[in-house]
Amino acid sequence: MSVVSTITYTDGLSFDVEVNGHHFDIDADAKYGGKDRGPKPMPLLLSALGGCSGMDTVSILRKMKFADFKLKVEVEGEYSTGDHPHIYESIEARYYFEGEGLVEDKVKHAIKLSMTQYCGVKAMLDKAADITWKIFINGREVS
Amino acid sequence: MSVVSTITYTDGLSFDVEVNGHHFDIDADAKYGGKDRGPKPMPLLLSALGGCSGMDTVSILRKMKFADFKLKVEVEGEYSTGDHPHIYESIEARYYFEGEGLVEDKVKHAIKLSMTQYCGVKAMLDKAADITWKIFINGREVS
Repeated sequence: MSVVSTITYTDGLSFDVEVNGHHFDIDADAKYGGKDRGPKPMPLLLSALGGCSGMDTVSILRKMKFADFKLKVEVEGEYSTGDHPHIYESIEARYYFEGEGLVEDKVKHAIKLSMTQYCGVKAMLDKAADITWKIFINGREVS
Repeated sequence: MSVVSTITYTDGLSFDVEVNGHHFDIDADAKYGGKDRGPKPMPLLLSALGGCSGMDTVSILRKMKFADFKLKVEVEGEYSTGDHPHIYESIEARYYFEGEGLVEDKVKHAIKLSMTQYCGVKAMLDKAADITWKIFINGREVS
């Protein structure tokens, strides 16, 4: 099975991105000749990782009967230095949960399942970068 | 140098994505419990590749004094089958140019520079997938 995303040049360094029927602009910073109309391509890799793993985690926790919580995922990529191409050498995902009744071991297990078995974005990016994660429940780190 | 994208759970399987100051929704298909409010995470990898390489290509062609053209990039990912995680085993980027005066060798050189030297997204994803490209100028394949 295959999937297609179509990227159409508009002006400056802006492109219209179509991806499974949805559209948004991507652009570059002004210092590179862009107008900052939308996300830059490299950080989108971090968004894809957070979204992929976030969806897995919510799905798995629901199957464990945990449904009433807040979740924010910060994904930070550390750029390589030196010659082009500049890639992320390391990526850290930080999961911040808020809610009552979340069982620490279940949350840790859900994220481990996502990061080691289910998330295709993680499986692709970890061929290029060292990917680690931290977990916080109600402000306390449990990872 | 590092960069952060923040993904915040809203409801269902929807998340608000913040990436360099811009926001959009990501979501899953209805059959997986989503509401299709925005891009799915895995196809975003293809958008990032097309955007990264598209920006490089436009920049390089401008330096070669080619500025008056249309460009659409289709990026197609072929999923692995079998057990999770499902990744893209192969990715094909197809560049469609329209315009007068585009010199075939210059266009091919610009894209080769992007795909082999500049595009960080390509450099990361090609550790996991076989990435190839085709180039069309005014409807004729030149790659």
